[in-house]
Amino acid sequence: MNTVITISREFGSGGHSIGKQVAEKLGIPFLDSQIVEEVAKESGFAKDYVKKADEAASYPDLFITSNIFSTNYFDSPQEQIQKIQSEYIIEQAKKGPCVIAGRCADYVLENAGIPALNVFIHASMEFRKNRVLNVYGETDERIEKRIEKKDKGRKSYYRYYTDRKFGEYENYALSLDSGILGEEKCIEYIIDAAENFNK
Amino acid sequence: MNTVITISREFGSGGHSIGKQVAEKLGIPFLDSQIVEEVAKESGFAKDYVKKADEAASYPDLFITSNIFSTNYFDSPQEQIQKIQSEYIIEQAKKGPCVIAGRCADYVLENAGIPALNVFIHASMEFRKNRVLNVYGETDERIEKRIEKKDKGRKSYYRYYTDRKFGEYENYALSLDSGILGEEKCIEYIIDAAENFNK
Repeated sequence: MNTVITISREFGSGGHSIGKQVAEKLGIPFLDSQIVEEVAKESGFAKDYVKKADEAASYPDLFITSNIFSTNYFDSPQEQIQKIQSEYIIEQAKKGPCVIAGRCADYVLENAGIPALNVFIHASMEFRKNRVLNVYGETDERIEKRIEKKDKGRKSYYRYYTDRKFGEYENYALSLDSGILGEEKCIEYIIDAAENFNK
Repeated sequence: MNTVITISREFGSGGHSIGKQVAEKLGIPFLDSQIVEEVAKESGFAKDYVKKADEAASYPDLFITSNIFSTNYFDSPQEQIQKIQSEYIIEQAKKGPCVIAGRCADYVLENAGIPALNVFIHASMEFRKNRVLNVYGETDERIEKRIEKKDKGRKSYYRYYTDRKFGEYENYALSLDSGILGEEKCIEYIIDAAENFNK
């Protein structure tokens, strides 16, 4: 198995857990959003951010938006983090097979010309509410609000950095409803597809 | 196996062939768009159409649009066909497990409260061009035009009768890229998901 797998997912769908178990079963590294973000921050963001923020302060008009791969010196802090994250994702994918959750990894690797099995995990709001309720123990109202907020955040994050719509079928080899299929089956299909990828 | 399976697909993706093989392997009926359309026509459209067209000719202003489930007497011929098709799909699904390709079957069954495993099959334009070329032997230019025309037709047909976007992940338990995964694997996952549906 020599495949890089990316997992994009709706909040509460269990996509994170599915990605983690796929990595464990295949014995390859699992990189989730948090890990990517932390590593990116440690590896250079804090230092770079302070430096660039200092310098850019003299040119406030030059704080313009850009995509992941531009090299604009005056990117916003979030855009700098995204670039360092993208570089980190590419670096890890070049090292060998791994599972990467979130961070627009499907788009990042596609643009870097690195083949990956791209997977999208989703589920109905009802299923996600129950799942989040089981995991976090909140009330119904809070859960729904939280899910909607997270959904909105992921959609706009993905749109901003990729200029594509979150979850569109064209971008994924497999889009799976974890509520209908169950976590175990999602894991099974992903592993099987990864083992047969590019054969 | 007691599951109704619907297959929506991009033209040239092999979704029709996948659906047919799933039905054969499961030993259940396969209903494609052509069959549904023919049966619907034979079962009442021709007779009804002539009758209603005759009567409606006196009230041309009353030829208004409507959705699949309305019962407007002055529907256009195409809308009448769609309604008879929908009734036929529901009737077949109530009889027992089957595979239904196209004709907005996912939407029709959902609205009729009949559980179904909804599948979407897609592939890159490059893969679909090659596949259509192999099957029909046309030139590259003709193939691309034909695919785009068919894509457009399916999208607007689905949008018109369902008011939903063709291929959106929310509506499918599995969305599979037949170009990346291969026909055999798509068949395997669909059969496995069908056998575990609602368990």
